[in-house]
Amino acid sequence: MSYIFTNILGTFIFNEKIELIDKILFKNITNTKDIENSIKKLTEKHTPVQPQDKQTEQILNYFKNNKFSKDFYKTNLELTIQNLKDSVQFDTLLIQSVNAIGEIDTIINKLSKVLREWYELYLPELSKEIESHEEFSNLVLKKSKKELLTELKSKTIGADISDKDLQPIKSIAKQLTSLFQLKDSQEDYITSMMEKNCPNISIVATPLLGAKLISEVNSLKRFMELPASTVQILGAEKALFRHLKTGAKMPKHGIIIHHPLVSQTPYNLHGKVARALADKISIAARVDYFKGEFVGDNLKKTITKKFKLDY
Amino acid sequence: MSYIFTNILGTFIFNEKIELIDKILFKNITNTKDIENSIKKLTEKHTPVQPQDKQTEQILNYFKNNKFSKDFYKTNLELTIQNLKDSVQFDTLLIQSVNAIGEIDTIINKLSKVLREWYELYLPELSKEIESHEEFSNLVLKKSKKELLTELKSKTIGADISDKDLQPIKSIAKQLTSLFQLKDSQEDYITSMMEKNCPNISIVATPLLGAKLISEVNSLKRFMELPASTVQILGAEKALFRHLKTGAKMPKHGIIIHHPLVSQTPYNLHGKVARALADKISIAARVDYFKGEFVGDNLKKTITKKFKLDY
Repeated sequence: MSYIFTNILGTFIFNEKIELIDKILFKNITNTKDIENSIKKLTEKHTPVQPQDKQTEQILNYFKNNKFSKDFYKTNLELTIQNLKDSVQFDTLLIQSVNAIGEIDTIINKLSKVLREWYELYLPELSKEIESHEEFSNLVLKKSKKELLTELKSKTIGADISDKDLQPIKSIAKQLTSLFQLKDSQEDYITSMMEKNCPNISIVATPLLGAKLISEVNSLKRFMELPASTVQILGAEKALFRHLKTGAKMPKHGIIIHHPLVSQTPYNLHGKVARALADKISIAARVDYFKGEFVGDNLKKTITKKFKLDY
Repeated sequence: MSYIFTNILGTFIFNEKIELIDKILFKNITNTKDIENSIKKLTEKHTPVQPQDKQTEQILNYFKNNKFSKDFYKTNLELTIQNLKDSVQFDTLLIQSVNAIGEIDTIINKLSKVLREWYELYLPELSKEIESHEEFSNLVLKKSKKELLTELKSKTIGADISDKDLQPIKSIAKQLTSLFQLKDSQEDYITSMMEKNCPNISIVATPLLGAKLISEVNSLKRFMELPASTVQILGAEKALFRHLKTGAKMPKHGIIIHHPLVSQTPYNLHGKVARALADKISIAARVDYFKGEFVGDNLKKTITKKFKLDY
């Protein structure tokens, strides 16, 4: 009687005394089919049986005390490294870029606050007038105090500051311009990634919102496994747990609120729109994950028809 | 008998019935000496007396009900605006730049964290090896994975990432490079401002530390009014109040710890060095504020001699 035993190194045949009598090592075979064939041949030659608990223990001891133990360590390491490398899929990279945009937004706010406070010594009237940080830093860079005062039709209570002292203020504004460009380029990257890898989500949810939804659960796989009702409130976990704990109102929507359709509809319809969107996004995610046929157009049409709105 | 009364508009002479009989308006006179002369002539001509409470009330009513009230408002506004404009001194601008550097530091840390996390998918071995954020982002920009692995003498467990997917990572590194440059340019600005306006503080405390000390109390005037013992613990307010409340140890130094001399001395001497530095910085600040003769060199020499160390 002989025993067959398979591990990550290969398939092994032992006799009754648990001595190795035959083997195939996987490391020389690259193709799954070849492995199957070799094992078949081996089985036909020896007609082995599966070892029982007692024999298994002896066989494991054999590998432990044997020159194979080094191979074990090496092969295991190689496999782990390969798994690690393979784990970096498009969604891993996507999520990094989504996180980066989040940080860039915070950074832009911080630096804009610095710029506004500093520039207010020179021309406080501008900061009150211009809400958008991007427009504000552009004006600081491109227009003189005189030009701005003409446009604002106002006198200024700001101090006169020499050109030399304006330079450090303008260098902050320049940095802001470049941060806005960085944000744009990250958004372009996310859009191209989403359109290539998640064409259905991209068309139903828009590429950026789709990417944000995926990054909420850290992978496309986990995202497509979610029920639509969870997609609807993704990002509103705080409100959800408040609901569960204190019986406060159930949240109607999470970050799905940033979908262009929601802003077009009156407040009392937001919940309805969010639910319809979550339904279709959830279907789109499954199609994208399993590389199914493109159905995004139809999904989108159902929604735009229902609410008589386009996006 | 006539009465004399002065306000922001001018000097006025009233008769007994509180009718205006003579005046000088300040708005046509630019020079303080001329004003003094005009008032002198007026007094010689009318030999008026100071009004008592009763007359003062009548005179104030005269201004209230008179065409002067519009002038009052206008002149007051102009004076306030001028005061506002004049309040922006070199130290106001200096403090903005010091604050900006603080924010830029936070921003660099945030963005470096983003860069490191993202790049670790590709080459995790580098992040462990390189502590400096600046060096790290430079290496990401300038060296290929192959070059870096040769330098690190290491294999990588990082994934293979296409050039297209590396672009957004490199654009973060580029932004970091430009943020480091921004920080440098702000430091240059502070240095040139300090050397021009506070030559004594600059040489005793170094320009950057001097600027930080001034910005702790928001003006050079307030800074030079501080006793040396306060300068010594400036920036350690938390520890100071803990000392006052709970009787914990008195702090030995605040941000003065960042002076190059402190890092050169053993820990048990830090308090002593901080006290000596605070003494001399405090003197330097008073000389700078009152535009006294340059004594920075001597102040510095006293310290370097005492501790037998140069900076």
